[in-house]
Amino acid sequence: MRIDIITVVPGLLEGPFSHSILKRAEDKGLAKVRIHNLRDYASGKQKQVDDYAFGGGAGMVMMVEPIAKCIQALQAERNYDEIIYMTPDGQPFNQPVANELSLKGNLIILCGHYKGVDERVRQKYITREISIGDFVLSGGELAAAVLTDAVIRLIPGVLNDETSALTDSFQDGLLAPPVYTRPADYNGMKVPDILLSGHNEKIANWRFEESVRRTKERRPDLLQGPVSEPGDEVK
Amino acid sequence: MRIDIITVVPGLLEGPFSHSILKRAEDKGLAKVRIHNLRDYASGKQKQVDDYAFGGGAGMVMMVEPIAKCIQALQAERNYDEIIYMTPDGQPFNQPVANELSLKGNLIILCGHYKGVDERVRQKYITREISIGDFVLSGGELAAAVLTDAVIRLIPGVLNDETSALTDSFQDGLLAPPVYTRPADYNGMKVPDILLSGHNEKIANWRFEESVRRTKERRPDLLQGPVSEPGDEVK
Repeated sequence: MRIDIITVVPGLLEGPFSHSILKRAEDKGLAKVRIHNLRDYASGKQKQVDDYAFGGGAGMVMMVEPIAKCIQALQAERNYDEIIYMTPDGQPFNQPVANELSLKGNLIILCGHYKGVDERVRQKYITREISIGDFVLSGGELAAAVLTDAVIRLIPGVLNDETSALTDSFQDGLLAPPVYTRPADYNGMKVPDILLSGHNEKIANWRFEESVRRTKERRPDLLQGPVSEPGDEVK
Repeated sequence: MRIDIITVVPGLLEGPFSHSILKRAEDKGLAKVRIHNLRDYASGKQKQVDDYAFGGGAGMVMMVEPIAKCIQALQAERNYDEIIYMTPDGQPFNQPVANELSLKGNLIILCGHYKGVDERVRQKYITREISIGDFVLSGGELAAAVLTDAVIRLIPGVLNDETSALTDSFQDGLLAPPVYTRPADYNGMKVPDILLSGHNEKIANWRFEESVRRTKERRPDLLQGPVSEPGDEVK
């Protein structure tokens, strides 16, 4: 899998892709993430990438032309399955969407900044608009990093066995159960006896019950409607 | 406002806080973000911060002790309004929560990694658990960066006037309208005439109608129930 990220603030994305799981995926040859500075595709001495909004009002708007040039340059190199725009009014991102995207080959992610991109970019180039949540960020960069992390860790071989994604929250439509590690007694706070019992079946049952209890308590909405399975396509 | 972030992968957070709006907030003295490496609070030569889960199963669990030591060291320096744990089973993060947190003084954010933290940390130290969405990340670091960005940009003075947060998506319970910038004609794709008309009132009406239309089309759920106002407390 290859992900090309287009941004006006490439520095924002320095950390996430040179550490942890994304670094490991790259080292293993399982995923490639490349950051493109939109300014490299701007014309004129000032390398302008944004301008005032037609109709007035606060905030700058990212111009069509540099984005078009960057996307066209990437498309000249290879085919892309999706050109994704990170935007608060996009399709809400969730685990089924992450599962679906993890099966793709090449993706472009365009990060909005300022007040967003000229609507004509969305009409002409973008194949999919995704939001990581009902909140506003200073740009799409952190949203792109979140999406990339959530997707790449699902590619087989990226996680070690012991951190398998299959027992994560949401993969079975439930929140994960509580976890404990040593010491068994921390200043009088004890680990539930059942987890020390060695009865694998009882432990599995306890964990399932705790998952259900926690989901009912915290996110009853997840129990309404169909439960998502790991391989589900998003509707 | 001061935010202390506790993590086992400090490198993941290098980019976000040395660029863009967060850097500007720091330079202006409006917000301070400090990253703490949990390993500095681990004991023994190996600086162990995680261990196997009691009861078996995939994934390592972050130990109570280093986290407790780090939180206690921070609390010895100042009082904190909230100790937040980023976790997929937390309260969903949204714009009203961001608004509320932007009014706080000092926050600690604990980033989970691996299979999460020992449940006793949550029981004893955490005052609030927050999720940025129904998906799983390789750690809480990017979630912490997202929360920090969304919160700090709301502090008065952080954004320049021209990027005022008041016209963002969700601040009035609606998605933002389409935006356009020069050129007025891009390869035959034209900006709507109304935006070039100079009639401020008509433009404002058009934008409001487009916001409502887009919200109905893409996120009808936002129109059900009460519309969130900027100053709303989360329930």
